Amino acid sequence: MNAEANYINTVGNSLYSLIEKLFPIHRSTTGEGVRNTLRCISDEMDVDLKIVEVPTGTKVFDWVVPKEWNIKDAYVKNSQGKKVIDYADSNLHVVNSSAPINAKMSLDELKKNLHTMPDKPLWIPYRYSHYNENWGFCVNYEHYESLVDGEYEVFIDSSFKEGSLTYGECLIEGDTKEEIIISAHICHPSLANDNLSGISIAAHLINFLKKQKNKYSYRIILVPSTIGAITWLAQNEDRLSNINCGLVLSCLGDAGHSTYKKSRRDTALIDRAMEHVLMHSDTGYEVRPFAPYGYDERQFNSPGINLPVGLFMRTPHDCYPQYHTSGDDLSLVKPEALADSYSKIVEALFIVENNGLYISQNQKGEAHLGRRGLYRQLSGQADQRLDELPVLWVMNYSDGQHDLMDIAEKSGIEFRRICKAVEALLAVGLLKSTVE
Amino acid sequence: MNAEANYINTVGNSLYSLIEKLFPIHRSTTGEGVRNTLRCISDEMDVDLKIVEVPTGTKVFDWVVPKEWNIKDAYVKNSQGKKVIDYADSNLHVVNSSAPINAKMSLDELKKNLHTMPDKPLWIPYRYSHYNENWGFCVNYEHYESLVDGEYEVFIDSSFKEGSLTYGECLIEGDTKEEIIISAHICHPSLANDNLSGISIAAHLINFLKKQKNKYSYRIILVPSTIGAITWLAQNEDRLSNINCGLVLSCLGDAGHSTYKKSRRDTALIDRAMEHVLMHSDTGYEVRPFAPYGYDERQFNSPGINLPVGLFMRTPHDCYPQYHTSGDDLSLVKPEALADSYSKIVEALFIVENNGLYISQNQKGEAHLGRRGLYRQLSGQADQRLDELPVLWVMNYSDGQHDLMDIAEKSGIEFRRICKAVEALLAVGLLKSTVE
Amino acid sequence: MNAEANYINTVGNSLYSLIEKLFPIHRSTTGEGVRNTLRCISDEMDVDLKIVEVPTGTKVFDWVVPKEWNIKDAYVKNSQGKKVIDYADSNLHVVNSSAPINAKMSLDELKKNLHTMPDKPLWIPYRYSHYNENWGFCVNYEHYESLVDGEYEVFIDSSFKEGSLTYGECLIEGDTKEEIIISAHICHPSLANDNLSGISIAAHLINFLKKQKNKYSYRIILVPSTIGAITWLAQNEDRLSNINCGLVLSCLGDAGHSTYKKSRRDTALIDRAMEHVLMHSDTGYEVRPFAPYGYDERQFNSPGINLPVGLFMRTPHDCYPQYHTSGDDLSLVKPEALADSYSKIVEALFIVENNGLYISQNQKGEAHLGRRGLYRQLSGQADQRLDELPVLWVMNYSDGQHDLMDIAEKSGIEFRRICKAVEALLAVGLLKSTVE
Repeated sequence: MNAEANYINTVGNSLYSLIEKLFPIHRSTTGEGVRNTLRCISDEMDVDLKIVEVPTGTKVFDWVVPKEWNIKDAYVKNSQGKKVIDYADSNLHVVNSSAPINAKMSLDELKKNLHTMPDKPLWIPYRYSHYNENWGFCVNYEHYESLVDGEYEVFIDSSFKEGSLTYGECLIEGDTKEEIIISAHICHPSLANDNLSGISIAAHLINFLKKQKNKYSYRIILVPSTIGAITWLAQNEDRLSNINCGLVLSCLGDAGHSTYKKSRRDTALIDRAMEHVLMHSDTGYEVRPFAPYGYDERQFNSPGINLPVGLFMRTPHDCYPQYHTSGDDLSLVKPEALADSYSKIVEALFIVENNGLYISQNQKGEAHLGRRGLYRQLSGQADQRLDELPVLWVMNYSDGQHDLMDIAEKSGIEFRRICKAVEALLAVGLLKSTVE
Repeated sequence: MNAEANYINTVGNSLYSLIEKLFPIHRSTTGEGVRNTLRCISDEMDVDLKIVEVPTGTKVFDWVVPKEWNIKDAYVKNSQGKKVIDYADSNLHVVNSSAPINAKMSLDELKKNLHTMPDKPLWIPYRYSHYNENWGFCVNYEHYESLVDGEYEVFIDSSFKEGSLTYGECLIEGDTKEEIIISAHICHPSLANDNLSGISIAAHLINFLKKQKNKYSYRIILVPSTIGAITWLAQNEDRLSNINCGLVLSCLGDAGHSTYKKSRRDTALIDRAMEHVLMHSDTGYEVRPFAPYGYDERQFNSPGINLPVGLFMRTPHDCYPQYHTSGDDLSLVKPEALADSYSKIVEALFIVENNGLYISQNQKGEAHLGRRGLYRQLSGQADQRLDELPVLWVMNYSDGQHDLMDIAEKSGIEFRRICKAVEALLAVGLLKSTVE
Repeated sequence: MNAEANYINTVGNSLYSLIEKLFPIHRSTTGEGVRNTLRCISDEMDVDLKIVEVPTGTKVFDWVVPKEWNIKDAYVKNSQGKKVIDYADSNLHVVNSSAPINAKMSLDELKKNLHTMPDKPLWIPYRYSHYNENWGFCVNYEHYESLVDGEYEVFIDSSFKEGSLTYGECLIEGDTKEEIIISAHICHPSLANDNLSGISIAAHLINFLKKQKNKYSYRIILVPSTIGAITWLAQNEDRLSNINCGLVLSCLGDAGHSTYKKSRRDTALIDRAMEHVLMHSDTGYEVRPFAPYGYDERQFNSPGINLPVGLFMRTPHDCYPQYHTSGDDLSLVKPEALADSYSKIVEALFIVENNGLYISQNQKGEAHLGRRGLYRQLSGQADQRLDELPVLWVMNYSDGQHDLMDIAEKSGIEFRRICKAVEALLAVGLLKSTVE
């Protein structure tokens, strides 16, 4: 096994391992599940994740932080007293944010509050109702069909109380105060791809970023979706102007190819960097334009916020059948897919970090590269140690109008090869950076 | 038969019926045929069509209104005194705007003034010579070949006299003085598709538009082609600045798919509206760029006029074999094709009428749509009564930069669905118009 | 044989004939070979080619003019005294700019300085090492393999001396001092396509251009590649602002289709003119964007020079196997391919010469073309003598915003047809030039 494959293997296993640990926790928009998830990440990854509590009733833009929801137990017993639906078996069985209930009822009455998917008869659907006090259970269709007439005891020991909305945040300071944000939603219960994959990758990026010297500061935010992102934005409104760009991470572990959904700005550096990385990967990929439907990029890209934040995923949520069902379990996420997603983010961040405007110190005619050891001595055969083409591109287009990303796009040459040419040219004084 | 099919049926039959009534009239650039046509439309459609007479000799831009041409009779008799070509059989037999003649001549002499189409041997060609006093007859090629040697008597009882050029005009006043013009040419003799189809649709649009409240004023103009459009423009030059956009209608009844030729401005609202309607129809279509060759859009799009006026047709004139022949008869136009053309124009006008710039009243983060009844209460299944996607698009892009047409194009969502979302958002105060 | 075929034949034979005469001369970056080539062109074509000598050591931008290299003889003898490699057989046998040597050595030692191409075993490679004093021989692979062990006598009678770099230049003065430059490299030894084809076409263009009245001045420059172009630019820096555009000519005689590589400006008139000519030719072609790798267009398009100079060739150098081998001999270039390349350049120069901005004198509505004899008198059949479509395009788009190249591109009509319409319209006063 070569070095690269070995690295992929190690990273993939580590990413998968964190997902395994977080999988059993029952998360919701608010409550202990989110707190336990954040604590588990801090412990497992040895990172300093600030846990922020925002009280119920806090006004956040057009929204209000809801009451905190917690649940202890839930079941449905048949007339023989046997639990036919049991929260202990799967936290998906209860509608997320379900109101408490303790009642007896007929099968017909019960069925009005049972959710099932006849077209996917072996999977329990994931259903939530965060802003309305309803109750309900979710079961797979075969299970649903097997229920017989009779009186049922319905019990949900949940509570809505004054409490708080919880999110996690971690800042890795760089050379400048300008920030890149990485966001993942942490409100889904035992679903592996959506979004323990995103959470695990975000947590690993913390460790990666804090070990290297960065130009930008990085802020990783782990928030419940929609209301969590809105809360974070409302509470940080005065520092949004510091944000250079960002990524929302979700569904990054399935075997499908990578999908990048561009920011509303469409041609921001992060959009171009992600597309560049995907285009130069040897796997299939899709780049989609922004649309105001999806994950928390909706909030970052709302018109009054309008940050260049894209969404990185693999198979989009509406394109894989296990989405929001019990089929989205540990078997759906693959270590190698996780590692691949992670590597592509690292590559895109490398571009954002290293892009810059350089000025050729020899604008008239070509520089005599040969006498500086940057061009072959004898015609005919390429010198394996010299990568001449990116050198020529960088020299010709470092005219004060084109930065390295422009040059990589124009030339079709991978950004890292462009960077190596830049290093060689800086070393011989043929190139200068516009910033010192 | 459902309501929509029933409507199409009714409209189609009405459109066809007017064509049938106008078909026998012998029209030319000037003369009684045009007047009779305009009178017939006024009577049949119960509309108030102003008939304008512009005297012979009037200077109109680079042109001069010609003498008025009329014709009473025309025939060619053989040596036995039998009419072998008779104007009474078809007004296409005489070259339109032919000079009078009463002479005897050999077959060879006659043939110099006979027009025929060897490649379409069963059809009489339609030929005209409006600005030169020649005479001639048109016959189908089989007919032409059957003529035997001998002396022929040639008789055309036509006249060029001081008179006028005639056109019809109808103004339907709207909320503003800004006008949308609909133009169709009325100078062709008994040809059904070119252009009784356009005339009939224009006449029906008068009735449709006067029955509803319109933002724009509508001016329907029925003019002889080229010189008629030039005359209208020359006489109305001081009000051209009131014109918002327009459509020229021609050849709208054949079974082919719709074709829209864009205005010289290429991206005027009418161009985008027509393309939007065609793209969202379930039929094939073609959109062509502007070219200075075709119908009266040439005049509206001349550089010194440059109005955003497109051409709507079905099969372009150079693409159907019956064009300008006796094959363009009542059998070529279909009620359902006429109704389809008509409906598409109505849809495009709906867009022009309803496009506008709105401002979201919640620019930061998404609005809490759920508490306003605009978003599903429970995850997982779409609520059939709620069309959430256009709501999200309208909210995100109503940023002061994008009007509804922009949003429809960006989202790929049909304009009417966008409009329904706008209504719902206006009702709950989440959106405001930029005009009051 | 018709007139056009006859012309092509004559031109093709003349182009080929000059190549034949120049083929045996041993050229290098500097030295007698270049001088003899320029003298031969002057004599054969009866043109006044100024021969410029730039002394060794002259600083030209980032480069220094090297010592002049000349060679009298070179061979390798085996132990029997038999010449097994002989410069007299092919000037490709010696590495171009090889240092002198007179030594005895083993086969193993010799082989370190022998260049060969195992994948093209019958061709001698062309190798050069202009800026390093190495020695070497080139042989075909079969030849190389046939050498037997033993002692070899290696002899190269070459010299590097203070001298000069030589180039040729010819100015054909036009109505204005604005210049169009045509450049071809003259440093390659006995290779026919690369670049005697470009040299021969450049020489023939001198004769063509001096026989006609031109708006622009034309400067033909025949320079050693890279250092020669850089030298020319450095020495003419103060007049570069006079240059309107230009073409670099290379590899124009092989049987492949035409390839045009655009200037760095991408949409300069020369770029559009070349693409127009290629698009309207009935042969295949390729248009490539600028890239800073190729021939002397690299120098003209360096960022501090940035002249709109494109590269015209047939099969690009990296796409034909004979490139830089003895396979690039007289059999590779075809008279008809040379004539085709030449004709396309002439066409593109015709466009550059004749493009201009005209103003229609009838901006409102169409002009009455019929009364000026520019439109058919009778509908239905096109008048073969009238080419109405370009007339309509020129009239509609001569609005002060569109020049003839714009109109040709918009209409898809060949530039020469547009020009004929312009002539006809100027004649009747419907069009005026914006320059007098």
